[in-house]
This record gives sequence, C-alpha cells and structure tokens, in this order.
Amino acid sequence: MTNDNSIFIGNKPFMNYVTGVVMQFTTKGANEVIVKARGKFISRAVDVSEVARKRFLDNAIDVKDIQIDSEEFENKEGKQVRVSNIEITLIKKD
Amino acid sequence: MTNDNSIFIGNKPFMNYVTGVVMQFTTKGANEVIVKARGKFISRAVDVSEVARKRFLDNAIDVKDIQIDSEEFENKEGKQVRVSNIEITLIKKD
Repeated sequence: MTNDNSIFIGNKPFMNYVTGVVMQFTTKGANEVIVKARGKFISRAVDVSEVARKRFLDNAIDVKDIQIDSEEFENKEGKQVRVSNIEITLIKKD
Repeated sequence: MTNDNSIFIGNKPFMNYVTGVVMQFTTKGANEVIVKARGKFISRAVDVSEVARKRFLDNAIDVKDIQIDSEEFENKEGKQVRVSNIEITLIKKD
C-alpha cells in the first residue's frame, strides 16, 4: 500500500522527515515512498527528498514521479485562497 | 529554444511571475514554458504554475514534467550547504 509509505512534511525538525524517508527504505523495506506537502512546506519536501536521496541513501533511490496540484477554498476571513500541494514519489533503484 | 521560455522565480511581486507565464503562452505564442526556482522559492514556483494554469489559462495548459535536483556548495561561513531546485515544464494542450 503506497499510502502507508507517505511522509507528510510539516514544521517538525527537518531531520525527522529525512530519517522518516530513509527508515522507510531501509528498516521497513519499502520500494516506494511518497513525500507530500502543501503551501510553504513544498520547498521543504523537495529538500527532504534531496537530502535523503543524495546524502543518506547515496543515490540508491530515484525520483519516480512528481505531481503538483492546488485547491481553492475559503479562509477564515471569507476570502478565496488557493493552496498548492506536491507529491514526490521516490523509488528504490534496481 | 526552451531557454527563452524560462521564468526564474524570485522575490518580485507574485503576479509578475504569473503574468510572465501567461504572456509567454498568449502574446508570445510559446508551446512550453519552464518555471524554475531554487531553495525557498520552490513553493512559489508551484504556486505560480498553479495560478497561471488554473486561474488564468483556464486549464488550457498541462504540467508536462517536473524535475528536482540539488547542489552542495560552501557558504560564506565555510559550511557545506545543499540547495534544492525545481523545474516545472508547462505545455499547451492540443
């Protein structure tokens, strides 16, 4: 189930997320991990993916796919706001 | 030349970039526009792409491809830092 391998990026310490990704691939033997984020955390999701991939997993994983999207909704002040999101699918190399 | 159709996202007003993307597709007749950003501006690149695509170009353009990468270099304090980047390729639908 890909859903079980999702890491949602928020404002916890940066290395928590990197460790989360690395552990999925190593200890938990996942073949795919999806790094997800919304709004301002999108940059962070890219950073987490890159650090996990290049510094910790020594390029043994690839970026399989990246999807972006956005949703519009009404904020507390009754104003329409659009919030973007990203899903970065990382995959173990053969 | 795809290079001529690149929009590099920085800290100018948000709508400057959205207008830039929209103009490439409309007035300049581009088939592809590449939205590029580094570091903290990555989230903004996604926002610009989404607003251009959904609000202004009425879903007449698709996300063709998204690439992420990162480079490590030495900052002013002599510390190694990794900076991520993104390239979002938008394409006119048939």
